[in-house]
Amino acid sequence: MTGGGDISFFFKPESVAVVGASPEPGKISNIILGNLAGAGFGKRLVPVNPGQASVMGLECLPSLEESPEVIDIAVFAIPAGLVPGALKRAEGKVRGAVIVSGGFGEAGERGKLLEKEVLDTARKAGVRVIGPNCLGIYDAVSKVDTFFIPVDRAGRPGRGGLSILSQSGSFAAVAMDELAAEGIGVARIVSYGNAVDVNESDCLEFLASDPETSAVVIYMESVADGRRFVEAASRCSSEKPVMAVKVGKFGAGAAAARSHTGAIAGRYEIYRAAFRKAGVTELDGYEEFQAACKAFGLQGRAGGKRVMIITDGGGMGVGIADACHALGLEAAPLPDELEKELRAVFPPYFSISNPLDLTGSATDESFAMSVQKTMSGGHYDIAIVAALWGPPALTDSLPGMLAQKPGFSEKPIIVCTPGGEYSRSRLRLFREAGLPVFTTPEGAVRAAAVLAGGRRRR
Amino acid sequence: MTGGGDISFFFKPESVAVVGASPEPGKISNIILGNLAGAGFGKRLVPVNPGQASVMGLECLPSLEESPEVIDIAVFAIPAGLVPGALKRAEGKVRGAVIVSGGFGEAGERGKLLEKEVLDTARKAGVRVIGPNCLGIYDAVSKVDTFFIPVDRAGRPGRGGLSILSQSGSFAAVAMDELAAEGIGVARIVSYGNAVDVNESDCLEFLASDPETSAVVIYMESVADGRRFVEAASRCSSEKPVMAVKVGKFGAGAAAARSHTGAIAGRYEIYRAAFRKAGVTELDGYEEFQAACKAFGLQGRAGGKRVMIITDGGGMGVGIADACHALGLEAAPLPDELEKELRAVFPPYFSISNPLDLTGSATDESFAMSVQKTMSGGHYDIAIVAALWGPPALTDSLPGMLAQKPGFSEKPIIVCTPGGEYSRSRLRLFREAGLPVFTTPEGAVRAAAVLAGGRRRR
Repeated sequence: MTGGGDISFFFKPESVAVVGASPEPGKISNIILGNLAGAGFGKRLVPVNPGQASVMGLECLPSLEESPEVIDIAVFAIPAGLVPGALKRAEGKVRGAVIVSGGFGEAGERGKLLEKEVLDTARKAGVRVIGPNCLGIYDAVSKVDTFFIPVDRAGRPGRGGLSILSQSGSFAAVAMDELAAEGIGVARIVSYGNAVDVNESDCLEFLASDPETSAVVIYMESVADGRRFVEAASRCSSEKPVMAVKVGKFGAGAAAARSHTGAIAGRYEIYRAAFRKAGVTELDGYEEFQAACKAFGLQGRAGGKRVMIITDGGGMGVGIADACHALGLEAAPLPDELEKELRAVFPPYFSISNPLDLTGSATDESFAMSVQKTMSGGHYDIAIVAALWGPPALTDSLPGMLAQKPGFSEKPIIVCTPGGEYSRSRLRLFREAGLPVFTTPEGAVRAAAVLAGGRRRR
Repeated sequence: MTGGGDISFFFKPESVAVVGASPEPGKISNIILGNLAGAGFGKRLVPVNPGQASVMGLECLPSLEESPEVIDIAVFAIPAGLVPGALKRAEGKVRGAVIVSGGFGEAGERGKLLEKEVLDTARKAGVRVIGPNCLGIYDAVSKVDTFFIPVDRAGRPGRGGLSILSQSGSFAAVAMDELAAEGIGVARIVSYGNAVDVNESDCLEFLASDPETSAVVIYMESVADGRRFVEAASRCSSEKPVMAVKVGKFGAGAAAARSHTGAIAGRYEIYRAAFRKAGVTELDGYEEFQAACKAFGLQGRAGGKRVMIITDGGGMGVGIADACHALGLEAAPLPDELEKELRAVFPPYFSISNPLDLTGSATDESFAMSVQKTMSGGHYDIAIVAALWGPPALTDSLPGMLAQKPGFSEKPIIVCTPGGEYSRSRLRLFREAGLPVFTTPEGAVRAAAVLAGGRRRR
């Protein structure tokens, strides 16, 4: 289907143009120009508008044809019907186009024809295209931000190792906004929409060798070229964790995916087989997508599926053990020597088993000691700490003490801290300590399962 | 096993005594007395302490034996070994005991013997017992609050129609705290712990005819008398929705449940059969428990499983449709006449189907009109509205407009509004409008499934 070839200039541009850059606040082109300027894109930023001398204090180019040099990225936020003409004028002047406009393949037969014309024109003009019907790129490394949602409605994450590919623009925007609120950084987020040219496979090829990206999460409704996807995903997954959520699996969802990006969603089983073959961890939906982002945004892969559960609320411990069982993780019993060691240091009313229940008498120290003693040996791969804030001895030092990981720095710790106002106000402390924190047992277990290579499907 | 008989005095007491009421802040008996006074329990509140003339300005009784009248509830927060003696002295003076102390059946052989002694003594003394190893009662109707977690660590919900029964104290406390933060009211919450006497069946019998209770949610690890449970639950479920989450289902979870409340968790399949027989909707874990509380705390039962999905983010709509399929709900296609009606009022770039995608051009009015037009006929039973806050035309009036339900007041609406800071700050508006609101597609669909009578198990 689509071609492949280098697209790295999209992620290290020396220049970005905004075609049709309007001086009018609220216009999409105006928001994009403002976000690019506000995000601190330090290279050449060029509004293109024949009717203005300057926009936002930046000198305007009357037309892309007038550009004295080749521009790396031109963002097109103009009506669909004007896109082919504008692309033609970009020949020799633009390496890559981000077409955020809608009204193409997702909009009936006429849109499909227009989309075909866009591809043909872009090929002739030698311009690579991201989109149309997309948000484009949010890149915390290069500071490129073509997402046309104002910053006050959708936060922008700081810099981190996570990269996200999304066919759905709204999904990409919501995920970005949530990561910003959770304090989890990203490298590149690409909303590629109808994928007329650049698609998930092109992006995976780039991300495979991108040193800024340590893990990749994909949201997809469809894949245009399955064989190429398997090749690109395999290459990427041999370098770093690659996870994917495929939506539009069944019935109404599949039909909706089709009308949403104009793509054929295809049979779900085929996707699952492709993921397995490519070493891609399948995520079940939005909540597993969230869990994957939080987990890999803050912790590394787990060495196995053996989970140690530590809590001060017996009932929560039981619920976590159930959820572990449901996702194929093993809450294995405490080995005898470890049980003896814990009995020697803890009062008799602690429930010394897995789950380990420190009861309402829990202290910061008893939590930290439990994590240290159970995780420093070879018995467990992941700790899930369910800290309820009822016990009066618990203090705000707990998150920092848990995060120290003496003697087992490579093993992930996942925190579950459900509850109301008091508990919610403590979530920040765990985030600041670098621990992925969830408000339900199931959320924490999803994250643990993702770090352990994915849930076991039944 | 245990006896049955009237326990309604626990829920409309004329007097509550706190045995061993300490003047020392931080002591459990002191916290309970403070919470009872602070919750506005307006009837007789009696600290019992031979060493004090008064505690918190309330005159002390030196001993329960000295009470001039029969006390409805005596709360025992004293060391386990002292409980049998104190119960003996309560004979003829106390109708019901709430024993919050731990160290009984959950604490090995010695504890089991002590628990037996408690039961025998209570029977002889004619005292009904809630507990031991529990938090007791939080009752928003009678203003009884024996939960010994300070109010600043765990919020107390206002008055509503939901009643919760929980074998686990920590679970009850966390649920209570969360409901308070979500602004959802309750009638009665009972944490019954080791259930030496009063158990889930006694409570269900009371709740069946309790006019303050409109729905019941149970968290259980075990049931002592299956036949009696099925009878009591059947009676209650014929009056109002009854839902239950059974934890300790498998392996480590089952073992943990056993050590947690000293009970035999039993085979999971037996519980499922009992729930089916008793008309109890089974909930899968904490997240479905949350969904049930939010959904039934704010909306009524759905008439069926047909879901209409309305969104301004195509990707979220697809995810919701997938989640509906997974839980056995039907996102049925739009009937022709309804599709025509919607096409007549909406612009051509809206995606007129189920899910209905209002795109980034969504307005408050287009959301409200979509809900009104799709729900006022006989085609759908529940609306799930996934409102992403990216579209600039959306305002804070949206929640109130959705909540109006012109022409279909009996059908539930569930809201999904994922995202970061901006979206999270809008959650409150939906709550204030009386709409259950979730931050993930799966959360909203869980709530819809519960309102429709439970997920379909595969």
